[in-house]
Amino acid sequence: MTTPTMTKALTSLVLSSLILTTASCASEDHWRSLSPQNTVLMTLPQGYVVIELAPQFSPKHVAQFSQLVKNGTFNGNKFYRVIDGFVAQGGPDESIAEPPTLKMESEWQTDQHWSYTKVQDNDLFAEQTGFKDGFAIGRDLNTQTAWLTHCPGVIAMARAEDPNSGSNQFYFPIGQAPRYLDRIMTIFGRVVYGMEHIQSIQRTQAIEGDTAVDSSKYTPILAMQLMADVPKDQQLIVEVEDTATDAFAQKISDRIERKDAFFYKKPPKVLDICQTPVKSRVLKAR
Amino acid sequence: MTTPTMTKALTSLVLSSLILTTASCASEDHWRSLSPQNTVLMTLPQGYVVIELAPQFSPKHVAQFSQLVKNGTFNGNKFYRVIDGFVAQGGPDESIAEPPTLKMESEWQTDQHWSYTKVQDNDLFAEQTGFKDGFAIGRDLNTQTAWLTHCPGVIAMARAEDPNSGSNQFYFPIGQAPRYLDRIMTIFGRVVYGMEHIQSIQRTQAIEGDTAVDSSKYTPILAMQLMADVPKDQQLIVEVEDTATDAFAQKISDRIERKDAFFYKKPPKVLDICQTPVKSRVLKAR
Repeated sequence: MTTPTMTKALTSLVLSSLILTTASCASEDHWRSLSPQNTVLMTLPQGYVVIELAPQFSPKHVAQFSQLVKNGTFNGNKFYRVIDGFVAQGGPDESIAEPPTLKMESEWQTDQHWSYTKVQDNDLFAEQTGFKDGFAIGRDLNTQTAWLTHCPGVIAMARAEDPNSGSNQFYFPIGQAPRYLDRIMTIFGRVVYGMEHIQSIQRTQAIEGDTAVDSSKYTPILAMQLMADVPKDQQLIVEVEDTATDAFAQKISDRIERKDAFFYKKPPKVLDICQTPVKSRVLKAR
Repeated sequence: MTTPTMTKALTSLVLSSLILTTASCASEDHWRSLSPQNTVLMTLPQGYVVIELAPQFSPKHVAQFSQLVKNGTFNGNKFYRVIDGFVAQGGPDESIAEPPTLKMESEWQTDQHWSYTKVQDNDLFAEQTGFKDGFAIGRDLNTQTAWLTHCPGVIAMARAEDPNSGSNQFYFPIGQAPRYLDRIMTIFGRVVYGMEHIQSIQRTQAIEGDTAVDSSKYTPILAMQLMADVPKDQQLIVEVEDTATDAFAQKISDRIERKDAFFYKKPPKVLDICQTPVKSRVLKAR
């Protein structure tokens, strides 16, 4: 995040001090490249969205999703269930043969030596939270399990009542994190660029009494491609902040204990895992 | 929220069970009318936004903001500081004479008899959370204080380092709730219609390395009016769910203890105050 040069009297206004705090760390940022094989470019009418897949956490979901992307399955799909403050859900319609259903990959076993960058003990929904490879993680030490959490912008597989019934329908949380879905849905990636385009997907569930939204207005997916399959000169190259560094751990500490004078009363020394920014930067735009 | 008639095979897919659970309560919903004097209609290029003001919690901020709205101060303003996952901030530029600065109204005293609809004990940021008049509340029993919480879609006054320096610059949280701002910023209303238009406000802080966003692309406020000042035949009339009813308290209980079979493993029996829907309905669209 850069510190903008602002010509208005507003420079000092809300949270500019926070921005400055962030900026002061900028020289310490460490960046991680995304593999084009492991990155999806989704083209919406409103702009480009880049998704980093998470094969290290949800290998079978990523394998199947990637193959569907390669096949062009999602081109022309629509977001048909979009509920404000909750999720934007899309996927092929029933005219497409359903691929195999997938066994839930919503949590995994860890051992005492499994390491991540811790954020918080006794989060509302988890014994611990933290980051691994840029992904927000919940963790239970007693059972030695860990899982990806439903922060805004993750992509997860939709399913029916049967936990192992997901196949090709997916959703993005677009509002406050629906953390009650943690551990019972398979998250397999996250948006690293273009979240504003995800958040502006046409709502399909009109609020009660409002005119129903005609399906012709649903937001279409113009194209969904693996970045590796995009011609090189058209690839959009994004790097993400490395969350395994001391610099990132320091940023977490700085957010937990706010030293800036802007905080004339100090907030509780806690940090919501889903309100912790992990930065991205664009090396080559499109 | 209505249960949509879906022609796709997707009817049973993700979270439809949740929707059905919600719908089953629909007959019990109780609605509260908004006073047109206490409601703001903001017109953005992408659509209408309706804001309910909160004079019962932040009387001086509401009085000043309402007067500025009446004066047309915000017509043509731009959202000049929009940070993905954080806030969209707008207000008049420095060519406009600044109105009086306002004393912080970020929390208030309660007594044991003060009542609200409780949601959660030992939330990450508050001893208790709940709802009062549709607004999300944090509460500390020891000091008998209560405050409005920074859920997505509230409107709050921006300020400089001095707590009592806010006047006419405002912001909406657009991502995960920045609860660390609770009690140190004055929230004075909330969006009850058109949150998707707030979330799609043009980001002004490009991610690092991306092309800077030209200020000509900033999202303008085409108009901001008190609903009472809008010609009657053009008013957009929204009602919101009454959060002081037994029916609403029951919905909270149902979200805390999920009985639906979709939850094959039960989530922790907790509820994030900012992930608790308060419904709206449109009686007259525009």
